[in-house]
Amino acid sequence: MDIKEKIIEKGKFAKIAARNLGNCRTDIKNKALINMAEALLKNTDIILEANEKDMEAGRAKGLSKAMLDRLMLNQKRILDMAEGVRQIASLEDPIGEVTKMWKRPNGIQIGEIRVPLGVIAIIYEARPNVTVDAAALCIKAGNAVMLRGGSEALNSNKALADVISKAAIEAGLPENSIQYIDIVDREAVNIMLKLNDYIDVLIPRGGAGLIKNVVQNATVPVIETGVGNCHVYVDADADLKMAEEIIINAKTQRPAVCNAMETLLIHKDCYKELLKSLAPRLKELGVEIRGCERTIAVIPEALKALEEDFYKEFLDLILAVKVVDSLDEALEHIYKYGTKHSEAIITNNYFNSQRFLKEVDAAAVYVNASTRFTDGFEFGFGGEIGISTQKLHARGPMGLKQLTTNKYIIYGEGQIRK
Amino acid sequence: MDIKEKIIEKGKFAKIAARNLGNCRTDIKNKALINMAEALLKNTDIILEANEKDMEAGRAKGLSKAMLDRLMLNQKRILDMAEGVRQIASLEDPIGEVTKMWKRPNGIQIGEIRVPLGVIAIIYEARPNVTVDAAALCIKAGNAVMLRGGSEALNSNKALADVISKAAIEAGLPENSIQYIDIVDREAVNIMLKLNDYIDVLIPRGGAGLIKNVVQNATVPVIETGVGNCHVYVDADADLKMAEEIIINAKTQRPAVCNAMETLLIHKDCYKELLKSLAPRLKELGVEIRGCERTIAVIPEALKALEEDFYKEFLDLILAVKVVDSLDEALEHIYKYGTKHSEAIITNNYFNSQRFLKEVDAAAVYVNASTRFTDGFEFGFGGEIGISTQKLHARGPMGLKQLTTNKYIIYGEGQIRK
Repeated sequence: MDIKEKIIEKGKFAKIAARNLGNCRTDIKNKALINMAEALLKNTDIILEANEKDMEAGRAKGLSKAMLDRLMLNQKRILDMAEGVRQIASLEDPIGEVTKMWKRPNGIQIGEIRVPLGVIAIIYEARPNVTVDAAALCIKAGNAVMLRGGSEALNSNKALADVISKAAIEAGLPENSIQYIDIVDREAVNIMLKLNDYIDVLIPRGGAGLIKNVVQNATVPVIETGVGNCHVYVDADADLKMAEEIIINAKTQRPAVCNAMETLLIHKDCYKELLKSLAPRLKELGVEIRGCERTIAVIPEALKALEEDFYKEFLDLILAVKVVDSLDEALEHIYKYGTKHSEAIITNNYFNSQRFLKEVDAAAVYVNASTRFTDGFEFGFGGEIGISTQKLHARGPMGLKQLTTNKYIIYGEGQIRK
Repeated sequence: MDIKEKIIEKGKFAKIAARNLGNCRTDIKNKALINMAEALLKNTDIILEANEKDMEAGRAKGLSKAMLDRLMLNQKRILDMAEGVRQIASLEDPIGEVTKMWKRPNGIQIGEIRVPLGVIAIIYEARPNVTVDAAALCIKAGNAVMLRGGSEALNSNKALADVISKAAIEAGLPENSIQYIDIVDREAVNIMLKLNDYIDVLIPRGGAGLIKNVVQNATVPVIETGVGNCHVYVDADADLKMAEEIIINAKTQRPAVCNAMETLLIHKDCYKELLKSLAPRLKELGVEIRGCERTIAVIPEALKALEEDFYKEFLDLILAVKVVDSLDEALEHIYKYGTKHSEAIITNNYFNSQRFLKEVDAAAVYVNASTRFTDGFEFGFGGEIGISTQKLHARGPMGLKQLTTNKYIIYGEGQIRK
C-alpha cells in the first residue's frame, strides 16, 4: 500500500469508529478514560523507554534545549497526563444535550441536540502530551481521532497512542477510536489535509509554519489555533500598582505561550510613573524592552522599537512598549497590530472599560485582569484542545463543547409543507 | 488596477465597514433595512430595466427555461424582496446578547457575548434575489458583505446592490457595508477564495460545481451549503395514509430544492399496500419512479434503479424507491448514500423513532413529518442564508445567529495567574 492508500484506510476505520462512538453511553466513555489513565501509569516504563529513543535522536540531531524539554517525558509528566485524563472523565458529557426545543405554529416540535463532530484530526509538533490530551478530549465528546505528531516525538507518540488506544478498546470503545498516523513522510499530512470524505475537522497545533501550511492547503474544514500578539493598555487613570502586577504576570509568568503579553501600551498621563516603577522589576526578571521614544526617555537602556516589533509574537522575555495619547490611539494600535487573541485594559474609568470591551475585536477582552487567563482550564472548561483564533465555529479556548456540533430533531404528527 | 488589486481594495473597504458596522446600534441597522425595502419599491423600473438586459442576453445565449425563470424579476418578485427585507428588520438583533456569564473561583467574571463575524462573502449563481436577501441578513447581524453573483445576472445584481447600498448609507450605515463584485472574469472569485486578510467567511450558494470549487480552493473559512440526497423511510407499522401525504409532499411540492426527498425506503411488510395506493398519484403528478426489483413487481412501468440512482440528488420529479427488510437496512442505506441533509422516518413505533433520531447523522432528522421543513423560515429563524451541510460552525438552516460568532469579555479586579 502506498501512503495515500494507508491514510485512506485509516480514515475509513476512523469513520466507522466515529459512527459507533457517537452513540456510546457516557459511562462507557468514562470507563475508557479511567482505563486509559491507569494504563499510562502501568506502562510508564515502556513509554519512558520509547521517549528515551526520541531524546537520544533529538540530542544527536542537535535540537535546542527548549525543544528537548518539550519532548522530554518523566514519571511526573506521565502522572500529570494520567491525572488530566481522569479529570476529563469527570467532566459532564456534552453529547445528547438538547440545548433548545420549540414548537412551530403547525405543531412540529424542533429540538437542537448536541452531537459529535465525527472524525477529528489533530496535527501537532513535538509535545507528546498532546497525544493523550487531545485523544481524551475528542473521545469524551464522542469523536474518533486521528493523531499526527512531529517526527521528533514519533516513538513517544506511538507508545502513548498504543497504550491509551488498547486501554480504550478494552473498556468497550470501538476499535480505531484513537489512531496514530505513524508515517514519517510529510506526504501523510498533505493527504490528511484533503481527506474530506473521512475527516470532519482538522485542528493544527504548533508553530506558525505548521498552521499556515494547514490553513493554506486543507480542503477539510480547519479550526485555526495560534498566534497571539496580545496587548495590555494602561489607561490614564489606572491603578498603577494593579497595572504593574498584571503587566509582570502577563509578560513573565510564562512568556512562551500565546496568551502572554507582547506589547504594553501606556497612556501619556501615567507612563512616566509606571515605567519608573516597572523598569527595575522587568530588568530583574530578564525582560528586554523595545520602546518608543517616550519610553526610552524614561528607560535609557531600552532598545528602540522598530515598526516590525509591534507585529511580533516574541514568545520570549521581550516586551514592546509604546506610549499613546489616548484610548483611541490604543484601540487603533490594537486594531492594526493585534491578532485578535487576548487584549486587556487597566482602568478605573467606567466608560473607557465599556468602550474597550465593545470595540476591541478579539477572542478574549479583559478589564483589569491578566491576558494569561485565556485558557480552557482558567475559563472553567475543564480541559482545552487549543485556543481558536478564527471566528468560525469556535473562538477562544476550546473545551469539550467546541468539539461538538448540533443536529435538529423534529417530532411531527404527519405535517406537510403547504 | 488589475483584478487582484481591485478585489483587495474592496476587501479593505469591507473590513473598514465591518469595524464600524459591528458596533452599529440596532435602530440604525433597522432604519437602513426599511430604507432598503422602500428603495427597492421606488426603483422598481430601474431594476426591471437592468433585468431585461440580462433576460435578453440569457435568451440569446439559449439559457434553459428554468434558468431564465430563476433570473427573471417582475413587480411581484421585487415586492417580495422588499417584504423580506422588512421582515429581517423586524427580527431580534442577535448582536450583543450575552449568552452566558459565570464567575471563576478567583473572582473574574467571564461573559460570552455574540458579535458579528466581520466580512462575509457570498458567491452565488443566477438568482438576483440572493443579492438582496443575503445583504439584508448579513447587515442585520452586523457584518459587511461582498456579493459575487453569476455573470448571467450581472446587470440585475448591480442594479439591486446599487439601490440597497445607497439606501443603507443614507440611513447611516457605513460606506461599503454592501459591495457587489462586478468583475465578470472568474479570476475575481479565485482571488476572493484566498483573501484571508479581509474576508472572514465565505458562503457559496449554488450548484454542486460552484460549491466544489469553493471548498477545494478556498483558504478563507467556508460554510458549505448544498447537496441534499434526502430519504423518507416508511417503517413496518407506519400510518400509511400519513406516509403517503408526506411522500407526495416531500417529493413534489418543490422538487428542485435540496430538502426534497430523492429516495423512498419502504419496509417489506407494508410496501405492497403503500406502493399500490401511491403509484397512481405519483404518476398523475408526473413523477418518474426508479425502483428495486420488489418495487417493479408492484409498479411494472417503473424503471429499474441503478446503484448510481441511489447516490443522486435528482432535483427533479424522479424518485428512487427501495424496499428494505428492516430499520437496520434503512439506516445502513441512509448512512451509505445520504448526504447528511434531511432524513425522515414514518412510524408508529416508539423505539424505532428514537433509534432513527439517535442514529441518523444529518442536519435535520424527522419523525412523521416532511423533509421539506428544513428551512430557516419553517424553523422560525425568520430568514435563511442557506442550509449548511457541514458540521463546523453551523449545521442546517442558517439564520441571523449563524452569521455571528462570540467573544469572551472578562471583568477583573486585578487578578493575575498563579
